This record gives sequence, structure tokens and C-alpha cells, in this order.
Amino acid sequence: MTLLDTPVLGEEALARIEADAHTILSEVGIEIHHERALALLEEHGQTVDGTRAHLDPEFVLQLVRRAPERFTLHGRNPARSVELGGGSLACTSSGGAPFVSDLVNGRREGTLAAHDDIVRLVHTSDELAIVQSGGTEASEIEPTSRHLDLDLSCLRLSDKPYVCYGTSGPKARDAVDLAAIVFGGREALAERPAMLGIVNPNSPLVWDELMVDALWEWAEARQPVVVTPFLLAGATAPVSVAGGLSLQIAEALTGIALIQLISPGAPAVFGSFFSAIDMRTGGPAFGTPEFVLGTLAGGELARRYGVPFRGGGGLCSANVLDGQAAHESAMALWSTFLAGSDLVMHAAGWLEGGLTTSFEKMVLDIEALRMFRAMREGIPVDDEHLALDAIRETGPGGMFLAASHTLEHFREWSFLSPVFRSTAYSSWTKAGSPRAEETATAVWQSMLERYEEPTLDDAVAEELEEFVARRRLVLDD
Amino acid sequence: MTLLDTPVLGEEALARIEADAHTILSEVGIEIHHERALALLEEHGQTVDGTRAHLDPEFVLQLVRRAPERFTLHGRNPARSVELGGGSLACTSSGGAPFVSDLVNGRREGTLAAHDDIVRLVHTSDELAIVQSGGTEASEIEPTSRHLDLDLSCLRLSDKPYVCYGTSGPKARDAVDLAAIVFGGREALAERPAMLGIVNPNSPLVWDELMVDALWEWAEARQPVVVTPFLLAGATAPVSVAGGLSLQIAEALTGIALIQLISPGAPAVFGSFFSAIDMRTGGPAFGTPEFVLGTLAGGELARRYGVPFRGGGGLCSANVLDGQAAHESAMALWSTFLAGSDLVMHAAGWLEGGLTTSFEKMVLDIEALRMFRAMREGIPVDDEHLALDAIRETGPGGMFLAASHTLEHFREWSFLSPVFRSTAYSSWTKAGSPRAEETATAVWQSMLERYEEPTLDDAVAEELEEFVARRRLVLDD
Repeated sequence: MTLLDTPVLGEEALARIEADAHTILSEVGIEIHHERALALLEEHGQTVDGTRAHLDPEFVLQLVRRAPERFTLHGRNPARSVELGGGSLACTSSGGAPFVSDLVNGRREGTLAAHDDIVRLVHTSDELAIVQSGGTEASEIEPTSRHLDLDLSCLRLSDKPYVCYGTSGPKARDAVDLAAIVFGGREALAERPAMLGIVNPNSPLVWDELMVDALWEWAEARQPVVVTPFLLAGATAPVSVAGGLSLQIAEALTGIALIQLISPGAPAVFGSFFSAIDMRTGGPAFGTPEFVLGTLAGGELARRYGVPFRGGGGLCSANVLDGQAAHESAMALWSTFLAGSDLVMHAAGWLEGGLTTSFEKMVLDIEALRMFRAMREGIPVDDEHLALDAIRETGPGGMFLAASHTLEHFREWSFLSPVFRSTAYSSWTKAGSPRAEETATAVWQSMLERYEEPTLDDAVAEELEEFVARRRLVLDD
Repeated sequence: MTLLDTPVLGEEALARIEADAHTILSEVGIEIHHERALALLEEHGQTVDGTRAHLDPEFVLQLVRRAPERFTLHGRNPARSVELGGGSLACTSSGGAPFVSDLVNGRREGTLAAHDDIVRLVHTSDELAIVQSGGTEASEIEPTSRHLDLDLSCLRLSDKPYVCYGTSGPKARDAVDLAAIVFGGREALAERPAMLGIVNPNSPLVWDELMVDALWEWAEARQPVVVTPFLLAGATAPVSVAGGLSLQIAEALTGIALIQLISPGAPAVFGSFFSAIDMRTGGPAFGTPEFVLGTLAGGELARRYGVPFRGGGGLCSANVLDGQAAHESAMALWSTFLAGSDLVMHAAGWLEGGLTTSFEKMVLDIEALRMFRAMREGIPVDDEHLALDAIRETGPGGMFLAASHTLEHFREWSFLSPVFRSTAYSSWTKAGSPRAEETATAVWQSMLERYEEPTLDDAVAEELEEFVARRRLVLDD
């Protein structure tokens, strides 16, 4: 199936957008509120005027070329390791949500217990390859030390690779220190990266100190950094997709170039989080045509720069699990799929523009991801699939239901979703007319029942706990 | 945007599938329960053994080449005429549903009044180019003469082109006679086709008498015929997509070849209605990976044979407007879009595997179609869209919300759905926590209020009524 390579822009349009991005880099420049970063750039011949850096596009592009085209993100269980690159479509659950909701307990502030359950659900799902720290906030824990508990939740309850928490240098360093305990020390971790760090410039064109600090920590530790401008057409970007894309290039490449200056060859990801604001409400609109087009273009750009691509997700603006939530999420997921995304953040569970992680939404999104996995296999065309003998045997007017070819293959070849079923209306009403989200409740409950905590060496577990306790003393002081 | 040309099969796979289709045509053969058709085929050198016709693939392909690559379907209002071909994506509402539902009046048997409202909704929507007779059944009218009222409903209440009712020769002839009254007689109608006829073989590989009769009537009247095998993997087709596709070719090409034998050069459409059964329930499953892949392949095949393509739709198996309905419909619509469909039957309103036409579903599907229309425009890349001056003016850390570039363009460039909005959770709960389907109720109500009945010449209206009254006397006798 070749949908992954479909161009939405093409060479001429790309060249024009890129030319503008180069003008932005060199003429408009980028604000970088970080002394060490500015000094480093100046040292390498770039023009720095106060906090404004004017960058030579060729210099930036040369640095970006140092980043690997693909890399392995290691799981604590090697069987769970993920190769990022080449359209890997490795998905995480939604993250950063202050709220959590499910149909049993309602909508509520996030807690560590809810976070643990989200990690368990991700661990149990075959469609989600990467755990995310901060699937919901643990609101009962001090914000100063919360990141430790959230990262620990990922490390203890899953052996899949993960996205660490970290919105500042010290938090990023804590994330590295925790991972180093599990992965045999900082040096071993550097050789076999196990976690992703996320940085967002303040669009348009500002890098703040906290973010560059975090980037610096992860780059030095050689953990892959996902550089994702958060571009909202009409707010942080012009109201056109093309204008947003030139900012996207300027901002993302600056971040990736900085990583390469700090730590040549360190893995990095070209991130896209592109949408528009709903001008009637001022809120971000997800799963719209702008989102789809921006994501598709993002994939093309990332391939142009030879860096893995983070884009898309199961994003929606809807506040409840209705047709809006599903349509917006499906639009966003299709763009993810067609863009050839390597890393998909927020692929499952995202509701209310990301303010809530919904357990039922996670189940519904996973069903969509399951369909994409089936579609990625394309249409096998061989004798067994062509089934000419079965057609000969069954003949005109026959029925394939009981054909030996059908009985032999339907389990393997038919797509059967545990949630989405074709049920006659009368049977469905007899069953109490369940809506998909109600069926989804039973699914996540059964996933939690099925969940098995992966083993973690006692000594490692103890060391992690000690580290968290020690750091908390300092941080919450 | 070039997604329309994306191949899902490629040359080698296509050749293998086509080779099997040729074997089916010549060796297995097709049952045709229609004496005139069999005689016509025999007359042209084909082997007929009882009701089984064995066809020379090259003979079939030569006939298919006579069908035009594109044609115009004329509206009674010329401004509403539609060109079918080249990825025209002309959509109809769902059709053939015995039931109708909306959140005000509930789920009920179809009536002529409900049918009239469906025609009014299609007429009012910019996203639906073609009206469909039988949007729901008029259950209070005798089945023997119901087709007259349903076609009349389309002709009176809309001036868009339409899909006529007609599941037998006499009904197909009535449809032509009615259209001829409006379009200036049979000869004028033949020159400017105004309605589509639909025929389905009984898959696998059977053409029954009623269907061939209908095909014959329309072909002689030179109204375009949509030939659509109804292939359900595991029931009417093998459980593999590839096997279904070889049947798809054999059945569709036989129908199109017959049309060309009867009426050389008459317009025809290569139709795909490809899905799988849900082996747990025996019901047809829509919007699954099989449906998506089958539809994408169908588009490729139609282009190979140089005939417009009917495929996809807003199909789902769900019984209620939940996440399943939206996810399945979005999957199906994306495949429609990517397959480069020219004609899209059942694009809006389809619920319960097609047993119900839902007014709210129609509104939700129309929102999805609106997004596809926006996406088809792709990413304009010119100076105004690139917005370099706006980026210069706004600068790092600025806000584009009040930029003159934003104010000048947001109305035209921002996608704003009347149903899908980005609303803060608190505002949404204050508004009574409306679900998308509840918002949709207000939308179809407002569409019906906005609806304006197109004028129809009094003499023509009278002649139509007279024709229907006269025919009803005979048919209901």
C-alpha cells in the first residue's frame, strides 16, 4: 500500500515554502531566551542581536543532516523496542490532560491512580507502542515533584518505551536519571535511547529558557528529542496553511539544529502539531481540513529533511463521545496515516481539545488504529487470496459462507472489531441498545483485568523509589 | 492534491486479478436469466449453454471501450448539471431504506412525506449534487406503483439530477417516461441524460430477468446505468479482497458490455459496493478495512477500463449515531475520497446498514463531505497564502489573531462547520451539553425552513400527475 508516499505539496510548492522559511531564519530571526544557546550559535558564526538569532539557512540544514533518518527506541523489554522512521506509525496515548474521564467514574481531575490505569491500558494494547508520562496529571501531588511519580508510573507498570515528562531542564534531567537507573547507567542509556523528550517552541519563533534547557539535557544524554511547533492558524501562525508551514520549518529546524550543535548525531524528530482556531470561540479546532493538510505537508517536509516525523493523532475538539469526536478523530487519524507518521502522540484517548483523557475514547481510537494496521497490509494478491478454485466450486448463484476457502481463512482475513459490530436492529435493541462508548467501557475494564505487570528487578525498583524520595525532598522544600 | 491517483494495487497485482476475471468470464461463465440478452450474446459469437453465457474477455473489453469516459448528467436546472468522470465526487443521500429516523419523530417506517423531506434536504445541501428516488420507502403506498410517487417527488421538489427508482423493466420504463415529460420527450432526454439507473447482478455471477430488463430499458433510452455488483466477502464473494475483485470485474464488465451491445456508446458507470460479512452475526459490515481496500481497488479498476466510478459512501453498520457510526462512515468516506469516486451513492444519511435513513446522520455526513471539499482544494501556495509580510509584521512572540492578514482572510480560509465547533467545556455544559446529533436536529430543521421549491411548469406538472394517475390504475389493479 503506497498511500504513505502521496505528496500533498510537490516540488515547486515545497521550494517556495522553504524559501520563505529561509527568509524567516535569516532575516526575521528567532528569539532564543537562552544564553548558552545564543553563545553556541554565535561561536558557530551566526548573527546574534540581543536575544534574536539570525541563522544562515545552509548552516541550519547542514546541522539537520547530522540527525539520523531512523533510530531505535529501546523498551525495557527488548521485544517492545520500536524503530522510528520509514513510516513506523508508533502510537502513544493522549498526554498532558488535567482531567480524566470514564463512564463509570465520570469526569474528574487526574490522579496518580488514573495515570497508572492509563499506563496499564497502553501496556495492554497492541496498537499503542509507546507509553506516555502524563497521560493525565496527578493533581494530588505537588507540581514541583509530580514528574517523578509520572515517569516512575511508566517505568514500573510497562516495559514499552516511553515519552518522559519534562518541561524544564531539571525535570528533563530527572527523567534521564530515572531512565539511567533502569537502563544500566547514563552511558548505556546514551547508546540505547529508551525515552523521548518533547519540546515546543513558543510559536511564532520564540524558544524560551525552560524548553532549551530541557532540549539541552536530553540532547546531551542522547535521548531523542521531538521538536514540535504548536501552530494554530489565526493565532500562533498566519490563517493560511502555507504560511504556517514556513514557520513550521523555521522553528522545527532551529530546534533540531541546536540538538546537533550540542550533541552531533543525536536522534531528533521533526514534529508537527498544526491546526487552526475556531474563530467563533477562539478555541483550537482539531480534525479540520487545515489539520489534515498541515499534517500531510508536515510528513513531506520531514522526509525532505531526512528526519523521522511526529504528526497527527486522534485529536478532536468535541467534549463528549459523539459523532463530532469520532469524525474529527477519524479525520486526524487518516491524515496521520497518510502522512507516513513515524511517531503519533495522542493517538488514543484525546477528548476536549486534549484537556481530558477519556478511557472510552481510548478504546474507540484503538479500534480505528486497528483498522489502519489492517489497511497497511494492503491487498495480498496470490493464489490463495485470488481464490479462483473457490469461485469455480461455488459457481454462479452459490454462497461462499460455507465454502472451505472461507472456513479456512475468515479468522485470519476478516476484520473483526470487538467494539464495532454489525448487529441487526432487533438484536441490538434486545441487548439494551448499547452505544459504542458503553461497549467501550466493558473493553477497558477487561483490558485492566487482563493487564499483567511486567517484572522489574527488585534492586532497580528500590533505587528508583530512593531517587524519587531523595529528589522530592529537595523539590518540594 | 493528488491523493486521488494513489494506487493501492499496482500493475502486477491488477494483471493477476484481471487474468482471473477473464477465466471467470470464459471458463466459469455467467448465468443470465434473460432470453433476449442470451440471444444477443450468441448472435455476437459468444457461447451460450442454457442460461450460462461464456464470454470472450477480449469481446467484453472491446464493448466496454465504447462507453464514454465521462458524461454530463443534466439537471432540470442546467446550473445543477453534473459532469461524471475524472473524480467528480458527486454525492447522493442514502437510498432504499425501509425506515426513516430523526430525533424529533423517532424511528419509523418510511412515508412519502418523509421522502419529500429527504429530497428537500438534498436539494438544499451544497454537498449533495444528485437526488435519489427512494431515499426512504413510501410504505403507505402500494409497492406496485410506489416508484411513480418517489420519482415524482424528486422531479417536483428538486431541479438537481437524480437517481431514478426502478427494479424491473416496467418500473425502469416508467422512470424514463416521467423524465421524458420533464425533459422534452424521449429523444431530447436521450441526448441529454438526466437520471441514473442502478442495476445489481445477484453476486456471484447471476443476472436475473428483472435487472436485465431494467438495464435494457435505460440503455435504450440512453440514460446512464450504474452497474454495481454487491460483493460481501464471505457470503456473495470469497473471504479475500483479491477474490472479490476478480468477481467485481467479471460482473461489472458483463453489465457494461450488455449496455454497449444494446446501445453502443451509451453512458455507463463501473460500480463497487464491496464489503465483508461480520462472521459473528452474519450481517454486512461497513466501513471496515475490507471496504476501504475494496473501494480503493475499485477506483483503480474503473480508471483502467476508462469508465466513471461509483464507489464508497457514508456507510456504517451502527444502529445509532454513536462513535461506531461516525468512525465507520468516516472510514468509508475517506476511501470514497481517495478512490477518486465520480458518483457516491449513500454519501449521507445511511444508518443500520442502510435500513434507515437518518436525518441527523445526513447532517453529520454532510459535515464530513464539507471537509473533503475543503481538502480537495489542497494547499494554495502563493504570496498571499505564504503571508511572509504578515509573519514579518507579527514577528517572534507576536499574535496573528488581530493581524490584518488574518482579518482579511479568515472568513474565506478557515474551515467553520455549523455542527462541529471548538467550545470550552464550561460553555458547552452551560449550553446544556449538546451532543453532535442534537445540534444536527436544529440543522436539518433549518435546512427544511430554508428550502425553496424550484418552479416547475404547470403544464409539465399536470402531465406528470396524469401519467402517474393513469399508470397507477393499471399497476394497482
